[in-house]
Amino acid sequence: MDAVELNAAREAVRANAPLVHCLTNTVVQAITANALLAAGAAPAMVDAPEEAGDFAAVASAVLVNVGTVHRRTAEAMRLAARSAGTAGTPWVLDPVAVGGLAYRTELAAELVALRPTVVRGNASEVMALAGAGAGGRGVDSTAATDDAVAAAVGLALHTGGVVAVSGEVDLLTDGRRIVRVGGGSVLLTRTTGAGCALGALVAAYLAVTDDPLTGAAAAHAHVALAAEWATATAAGPGTFAAAWLDALDAVDGDALAIADLRVADVRVAG
Amino acid sequence: MDAVELNAAREAVRANAPLVHCLTNTVVQAITANALLAAGAAPAMVDAPEEAGDFAAVASAVLVNVGTVHRRTAEAMRLAARSAGTAGTPWVLDPVAVGGLAYRTELAAELVALRPTVVRGNASEVMALAGAGAGGRGVDSTAATDDAVAAAVGLALHTGGVVAVSGEVDLLTDGRRIVRVGGGSVLLTRTTGAGCALGALVAAYLAVTDDPLTGAAAAHAHVALAAEWATATAAGPGTFAAAWLDALDAVDGDALAIADLRVADVRVAG
Amino acid sequence: MDAVELNAAREAVRANAPLVHCLTNTVVQAITANALLAAGAAPAMVDAPEEAGDFAAVASAVLVNVGTVHRRTAEAMRLAARSAGTAGTPWVLDPVAVGGLAYRTELAAELVALRPTVVRGNASEVMALAGAGAGGRGVDSTAATDDAVAAAVGLALHTGGVVAVSGEVDLLTDGRRIVRVGGGSVLLTRTTGAGCALGALVAAYLAVTDDPLTGAAAAHAHVALAAEWATATAAGPGTFAAAWLDALDAVDGDALAIADLRVADVRVAG
Repeated sequence: MDAVELNAAREAVRANAPLVHCLTNTVVQAITANALLAAGAAPAMVDAPEEAGDFAAVASAVLVNVGTVHRRTAEAMRLAARSAGTAGTPWVLDPVAVGGLAYRTELAAELVALRPTVVRGNASEVMALAGAGAGGRGVDSTAATDDAVAAAVGLALHTGGVVAVSGEVDLLTDGRRIVRVGGGSVLLTRTTGAGCALGALVAAYLAVTDDPLTGAAAAHAHVALAAEWATATAAGPGTFAAAWLDALDAVDGDALAIADLRVADVRVAG
Repeated sequence: MDAVELNAAREAVRANAPLVHCLTNTVVQAITANALLAAGAAPAMVDAPEEAGDFAAVASAVLVNVGTVHRRTAEAMRLAARSAGTAGTPWVLDPVAVGGLAYRTELAAELVALRPTVVRGNASEVMALAGAGAGGRGVDSTAATDDAVAAAVGLALHTGGVVAVSGEVDLLTDGRRIVRVGGGSVLLTRTTGAGCALGALVAAYLAVTDDPLTGAAAAHAHVALAAEWATATAAGPGTFAAAWLDALDAVDGDALAIADLRVADVRVAG
Repeated sequence: MDAVELNAAREAVRANAPLVHCLTNTVVQAITANALLAAGAAPAMVDAPEEAGDFAAVASAVLVNVGTVHRRTAEAMRLAARSAGTAGTPWVLDPVAVGGLAYRTELAAELVALRPTVVRGNASEVMALAGAGAGGRGVDSTAATDDAVAAAVGLALHTGGVVAVSGEVDLLTDGRRIVRVGGGSVLLTRTTGAGCALGALVAAYLAVTDDPLTGAAAAHAHVALAAEWATATAAGPGTFAAAWLDALDAVDGDALAIADLRVADVRVAG
């Protein structure tokens, strides 16, 4: 994708303030909501089974993150994912720690069958979801992004959507094209919820772009550039989190378009 | 109300450190607790049905916020509200996103029947609770504060308590008097949980003041002045949140009393 | 314990990045995860009954904190504690507000019978757990650390583990030895979750040290020294939280070893 598309996607988030319905883990709800607000989107965290289906139908996009899932929230996730599918609302699946734990691995397989617009995870999670690996160590990947290329492409062809693999360089594919997004900062891995918030930002971008691969890549570039800016001012992992939110707000379409994040590295897969 | 009352209310929070029992949504529990601590109050987040009734009876004040309510926490909220009513403990209802979602709208109607000391919400929420509107967009209001005057007055006469409508200028009424609190900062709307934390601070002030309208207005003024101070030092929405907590601590009775927030704008309603 | 042990324990956390399985209250999950990440450990918050037992068996250490416990999470805690016991994995019990509320007091007694490696709480909580007091005011202690010496020693002899009492000066004992850790900052008490995060850091240290008293004391010293550093740069309780996380990262073994925290004050108990 080119600079014009990146610019347009970023500005569209701010102009449209998409309402992102987040069913996410309780550890990261606050930073997820704050990242969406900083980027110009509107978060709503509705995870009761009594409400999740109805709300997903009116939201601009939906995020399903299984980080602290249990029986009640699993039911809400199923309802929200089905409702999003029926309404044609884009939705993102974040398979946190899938592979290592049977309960969430089965749930994630169910959700994959509902065809998420984007799956976003680390290499271990994507490989486990594609049946190509056993999962990572807790929430951390034990595999490198490039190890997950075949799994990501296969999973994308299976869902008909996009698969995004986060790592030192992020890798995104829709099964035909591969995009790599570089940049970012190691401090993202020292801040709980940065990856989960990225999933929510992907949802926000999906709501305002026609091509899911473009939207997902723009969200990754936005997060990476903001992390670089924040690293320049942060004194450590604590002050980084606030600086990153400041930078998510400050990064505009022009800044994103001219950033040297190698987003343009697009190749035909297969 | 006058400067002397504002000063006294602020100092009474610090002197008495009221124990505020919060049944609130999981997104904002941390910033709510931190806002109470910064102001000099003592938070406790107890939302198990097994404990909420007992704890409400010994707390100085109670907050019930339905932001992420579900079956278990709804039951805890009913028990806490009833217990507070029996004990004569002041309590605040924050009807987050009521109007748009049937489940929480029915719950909020139940809770209103238990006569909260203060209802605090945005214009859409208050109008929906008063039967005068259909709710907002997710957690955001689609109505202006002044649109909600009649609904707020009517709701206050119905509960016998105070209704506080947050907006660019906040509007508070006990059905007889109207207070407007100006000031504040747009960054409050870019920080998840700032409005919810305001509800908790209202509860803290209710515990140390005799007149609920005075207590609620002082809490709103405290939040607004702290937001102005924080805006002066923040570099964006991320650093604003920490600066706002610093300022909630730094604002003392004298600072609040001399702030030009138009708190004195009191008129007879009706 | 001496400076060499403190230095070695601190460096071992960073070198081994222990995976700390946290079953903790929803208010403090984020700051707990961030404190572990800042110190160099790896957090994972898994609190579903379907997963908690399995995960505790593969984690490096486990934290059980009853701050917002309810039926589902209580069941997960029982499973995790039993699993840790069977696997020989060190685990920490943080009995938040035990004494004042019957439900969690009974649960804590059950968990104590499973012999936690370390119990960490304030004086009121430890005294209530030892049957020597009625609990504090909400989450705050109404007793001084020195009031809890006999209760702490008795409880340590009962569990066969370590009991750590947080206060202005922290007191730790394994029933034979007593260690006091001074320093710290009053701002720790103005930040929600600082004490709970300390419990998680104790778990991280237990995973990399042979002697639980040494590990627990090193964690307390780490937190206290980081709080001192953060107080020097913070403008209030809001900026303190981020500065404290920065300092948890910055404090290394050498800094900890030469800090004047009176950690060396070891005496034979009884």
